[in-house]
Amino acid sequence: MPLKNTNVVSAYQTKFGRLEGVTLREIFAEAVDGATDNAGIPKKDIQAVFVGTFIPEMLVHQGHTAPLLVDYAGLRGVAATRHEAACASGATALRSAVMAIESGIYDTVLVASAEKMTSVSTNRATEALAAAADDEFESSMGLTFPGVFGIAAVAHMAKYGTTEEDMARAAVKAHKNASTNPLAQFQKEITLEKAMTPRYIAWPLKLFDCSPISDGGAALVLTSNEKAKQYTDLPVKIIGTGQASASMNLCDRNDLTAFESSIAASKEAYKMAKLGPKDMDVAVVHDCFTIAEIIASEDIGLFKPGEGAKALREGVTALDGDMPINPMGGLKAVGHPVGATGVKQAVVIYRELIGDAGANQVANHDTGIMHNFGGTGATAVVNIMRRSDV
Amino acid sequence: MPLKNTNVVSAYQTKFGRLEGVTLREIFAEAVDGATDNAGIPKKDIQAVFVGTFIPEMLVHQGHTAPLLVDYAGLRGVAATRHEAACASGATALRSAVMAIESGIYDTVLVASAEKMTSVSTNRATEALAAAADDEFESSMGLTFPGVFGIAAVAHMAKYGTTEEDMARAAVKAHKNASTNPLAQFQKEITLEKAMTPRYIAWPLKLFDCSPISDGGAALVLTSNEKAKQYTDLPVKIIGTGQASASMNLCDRNDLTAFESSIAASKEAYKMAKLGPKDMDVAVVHDCFTIAEIIASEDIGLFKPGEGAKALREGVTALDGDMPINPMGGLKAVGHPVGATGVKQAVVIYRELIGDAGANQVANHDTGIMHNFGGTGATAVVNIMRRSDV
Repeated sequence: MPLKNTNVVSAYQTKFGRLEGVTLREIFAEAVDGATDNAGIPKKDIQAVFVGTFIPEMLVHQGHTAPLLVDYAGLRGVAATRHEAACASGATALRSAVMAIESGIYDTVLVASAEKMTSVSTNRATEALAAAADDEFESSMGLTFPGVFGIAAVAHMAKYGTTEEDMARAAVKAHKNASTNPLAQFQKEITLEKAMTPRYIAWPLKLFDCSPISDGGAALVLTSNEKAKQYTDLPVKIIGTGQASASMNLCDRNDLTAFESSIAASKEAYKMAKLGPKDMDVAVVHDCFTIAEIIASEDIGLFKPGEGAKALREGVTALDGDMPINPMGGLKAVGHPVGATGVKQAVVIYRELIGDAGANQVANHDTGIMHNFGGTGATAVVNIMRRSDV
Repeated sequence: MPLKNTNVVSAYQTKFGRLEGVTLREIFAEAVDGATDNAGIPKKDIQAVFVGTFIPEMLVHQGHTAPLLVDYAGLRGVAATRHEAACASGATALRSAVMAIESGIYDTVLVASAEKMTSVSTNRATEALAAAADDEFESSMGLTFPGVFGIAAVAHMAKYGTTEEDMARAAVKAHKNASTNPLAQFQKEITLEKAMTPRYIAWPLKLFDCSPISDGGAALVLTSNEKAKQYTDLPVKIIGTGQASASMNLCDRNDLTAFESSIAASKEAYKMAKLGPKDMDVAVVHDCFTIAEIIASEDIGLFKPGEGAKALREGVTALDGDMPINPMGGLKAVGHPVGATGVKQAVVIYRELIGDAGANQVANHDTGIMHNFGGTGATAVVNIMRRSDV
């Protein structure tokens, strides 16, 4: 049955990008302040913090990040647990927070996340990111993430006729949406021709098919129904949540044109929400690479397998389309500070649903879905959110 | 009010120590098999896995460990989330599992944990462990963990008159209890004279005051009341749980003779369980160093501040004492594969409570408490467990 007691009552995203002169803890603290004090929710009301960070151990030589970051953000003493699931770290933290509220153990909690990636060289960041794949079986052989998603792209092209131009269209859409999002790393529109620039990272993926290396943070406050009324007239309910895993290495997969973890997680979330893909007004999916958006849009049931590129070509997924996807620009153009991404996705859905998305507002905004994806798809989390007055 | 729906129905610990020729995933898989198939709980019944690992990123260049380890252990596809809180990683995973059951979202889940530490040099392991402290403020200046707990020991000695010999008694007790525990890294009794060997690691802590670097894993199956009956006639209930944080760096602490996170977490757990320290029959506390056992026994209220060493001297905390602490040997003698320790502590309480502790069985075993501690005490988790027939 649908979750009945979990509400998002505030949400904040920092600017994403190369944030010069600020450290991990400073980014995190900005996100926390934005979702609490500055949103009218005093920090003293926060009973626990669910933290998402991916790999501060290798990026800033810091483990045990939850109490460290929470202390710096002015919440010393509060129970704080770090969740790590590669690029899905943020959504696993969010999901734990949902369970904490539903359990009745807490009634007001914070989900907060940050990643500082530009403090190391691109090579070192790439090495750190590779720890999200199977080191013994694959990444130590040199298969980095552009390679992983390049393989998926080739498989999708071979099976469904998806083209490099289709993927480039996802990049054009991302940059267009991000051009009006002041928090985006890239706020510049690009032409299809530019997106097709043959600067290959891992064939068939080119520079504009890849999300960037970014710094950034995001946070949300979740409460029970009773507490929600104290903070806002328009809470957003989390009515369904799903999570699944899959083999980490690609060599154990039966199909590279779909990710079974995304399929399973979305089915679980729809079932819990008692809703289906047709009930979704807006979607945020994990577009670490352009092909990932196309595949995710199929995996979570918005389009039939193989029809994601067609929807993109026909403008269905544009901001003003029938099924807008990544209306604020996605990982591709907004940036991808890994541990923060899943929380930021929920921030986007929250803002769209309450009608606070400015130039990026979608027309219909009762119900939204977010899909966060870890590494090679070994983790997928899907949440369905609905405005409380619907 | 006490938690009412969370039961431990099986528990397993691997051998701890320098485990030659086995990898992280193999250790983890042994723990999972031990708590599931080999305990009569089919893997197909497991709906989610809560994983505790501390720092595989730096020890075996592997992040995103939850789905990787769960896949290798025969649970591909199941939702799996990794929790990291330095030495308290295991107990934070356990606590998330408690919330998952209490929320009603799942009714049968696995908590599983492992660390492989001996694959790197001792220096590299020490560097990795240091990531659990504040890198910017303290650990980068050279303050490693023996130093942190050496400072706590000096403060405790100055304030309460605790002596090096008192700490050595904790080591003697740990080795004595571990001598009959076949899963312990050290199964040899030591004399007080040997424990006092002046081989200083960080004054006043000597070699025998320090827990070792270890490999190992542990796992538990948790279920709702309804499911528990399918698996065992004697489930153990988790009736109280508490978690708190503190400043990571010592320079922000007001008192170095007590850890406020432990005090706060234990108060929360007692309150939830509607029990007090006097109701505890057996305790497992986080003795990464001998002084840590003494301080923890005071922090969680078993003895008044400053009286932990006296209780130890008088044999109160011995296996046959009135308040046995670490009856199977603790981190000090059983070993400390960091991410696995918190789960192993719950395994010990479970085995003691159901009367399955063999030569290490305590006389009274209705109710037990476990205390898991992260890094410099920036995280503390306390759980109270009770046999279901009490």
